[in-house]
Amino acid sequence: MNRKDWITLFEQGDVRALSRVITWIENSGGEVPPELKPIFSRVGRAFRVGITGPPGAGKSTLVDGLSMLYRGEGRTVGIVAVDPTSPFSGGALLGDRVRMNRAGVDPGVFIRSMATRGNLGGLAEAAQDSADIMDAFGKDVVILETVGVGQSELDVARAADTTVVILVPESGDGVQAMKAGLMEIGDLFVLNKADRPAADRAAEELKSALDLKAVVDGWKPPVLSTIASKGQGLPELLEALKAHWQHLTETGALKAKRLNRRRQRIRAAAEKDLLTRFWDEERTQRLEECLKSDDNPFNIAAGLVKDYLKK
Amino acid sequence: MNRKDWITLFEQGDVRALSRVITWIENSGGEVPPELKPIFSRVGRAFRVGITGPPGAGKSTLVDGLSMLYRGEGRTVGIVAVDPTSPFSGGALLGDRVRMNRAGVDPGVFIRSMATRGNLGGLAEAAQDSADIMDAFGKDVVILETVGVGQSELDVARAADTTVVILVPESGDGVQAMKAGLMEIGDLFVLNKADRPAADRAAEELKSALDLKAVVDGWKPPVLSTIASKGQGLPELLEALKAHWQHLTETGALKAKRLNRRRQRIRAAAEKDLLTRFWDEERTQRLEECLKSDDNPFNIAAGLVKDYLKK
Repeated sequence: MNRKDWITLFEQGDVRALSRVITWIENSGGEVPPELKPIFSRVGRAFRVGITGPPGAGKSTLVDGLSMLYRGEGRTVGIVAVDPTSPFSGGALLGDRVRMNRAGVDPGVFIRSMATRGNLGGLAEAAQDSADIMDAFGKDVVILETVGVGQSELDVARAADTTVVILVPESGDGVQAMKAGLMEIGDLFVLNKADRPAADRAAEELKSALDLKAVVDGWKPPVLSTIASKGQGLPELLEALKAHWQHLTETGALKAKRLNRRRQRIRAAAEKDLLTRFWDEERTQRLEECLKSDDNPFNIAAGLVKDYLKK
Repeated sequence: MNRKDWITLFEQGDVRALSRVITWIENSGGEVPPELKPIFSRVGRAFRVGITGPPGAGKSTLVDGLSMLYRGEGRTVGIVAVDPTSPFSGGALLGDRVRMNRAGVDPGVFIRSMATRGNLGGLAEAAQDSADIMDAFGKDVVILETVGVGQSELDVARAADTTVVILVPESGDGVQAMKAGLMEIGDLFVLNKADRPAADRAAEELKSALDLKAVVDGWKPPVLSTIASKGQGLPELLEALKAHWQHLTETGALKAKRLNRRRQRIRAAAEKDLLTRFWDEERTQRLEECLKSDDNPFNIAAGLVKDYLKK
């Protein structure tokens, strides 16, 4: 079967074709192959939820439970699970592999796990590509699940319509989250593993800290307590997500967010295009010649650019 | 005093001017002010050491001790301490502030601490800028100290001439480092806090893992045990650093590394220059108009670029 046939299957809603298309993009080093480009004009219908939190907060379990609830309402779900391999904390998680098996059970839930040891900039891009493809495929809800260990991972969650920050009672996560400015990115806060000691105090701390925060655009981020492993608190989370979506729709923020994602996508594509043209053989060779010069790098750079634009 | 006077002082080796110049670059959002550009033609004489490891490995103490040893040999030292605020692990470290006070004691050691919650891409750039400025100022040794929590921080350490990876005996860091490909970036491995239990075993594990690694360009990364807080093992670390420098010099790798840093610097400056020109008012406005189009973002982007280059 050739690519054109696969794209026809994709348009017909075939899950194998969805998987295939995402793999093509991954394998092409982030460059979207020409025949896939038209797919991207259909992006912008799914509701995107970003879920982030420290390792071990129970994100996967919570996302799985949430997906089931969405399925129960007849909605289709796409999940992009970003699990970058921290150079110090080590390998990919077994848990994800278990979940990938589960995804086969319900064709209405599509999970794509991404682990990388390479460039995180590339990771954020690949995650957005996958989310866009799931959106274009027709998924009603696209969940971007990331381990909040670095800025790039947070940016992935942030690019969603609604960002959920998951914390656990131990180790003063609540207080630390405040310090580190996580407050600003969360539209919803979830205190998971709420059956552990000190959970109530942690939830209260979170709420007090949020009370100090200015209410933005009429939305006050709620704090929910869950025990994701038992499904406790998940229906309430689903309701809170719906409430935030409604808020976004009513204030026009949803439309603005979608427009901004499209704007960023065009910007990035234009920059990539321009830079690829700029670094042609001639320019690359000119750079090598310039290395011998004693001039400062900024003058040399400006010379290369002026020379290029003069052509 | 105007900027020109400060630059004259900088050229005369005034430490206050060094501090001032770095601040200017930081405050200009990474854009190097025109009057500072000539300084960058003097970059490329210092020996650059990148030091990275997990939080709590004792990097600061080790770097301080190492600096003293360099000072004892009459060499001047510049330190760029990158301490990005992890969104989950929380605020900047008190330790750094203590160290900044200490820097005042010996004018031959200049410390610049950088903490950021913002874009890590920008952080890597700012760290390189500071290192370049210290290099141009005439520091013999420039140490780039980063917490190895993410790719960007590792890239900072990697861009040095010699990269030192610090680990501690606990929590199986050795084994995890192997898994996660830290092996490839370390030219020297240090097992700090070597008086803790299981230190010997951890060192042996590290050595065995390194034995499996192919020797690149005739250099076999040594494993050193230190107790930085007592100064133990630091003279040996100094000798190992010298040995690596000599190795880099003899094989021509040092020259190649310096040339490559200059190449990257020119590339980055050219790209910034080109993109700034591209996103002029006309292009930015054109982008907004294009947002309404139903076409896919890649076609729109290509149209913007073609239109620009036609001018």
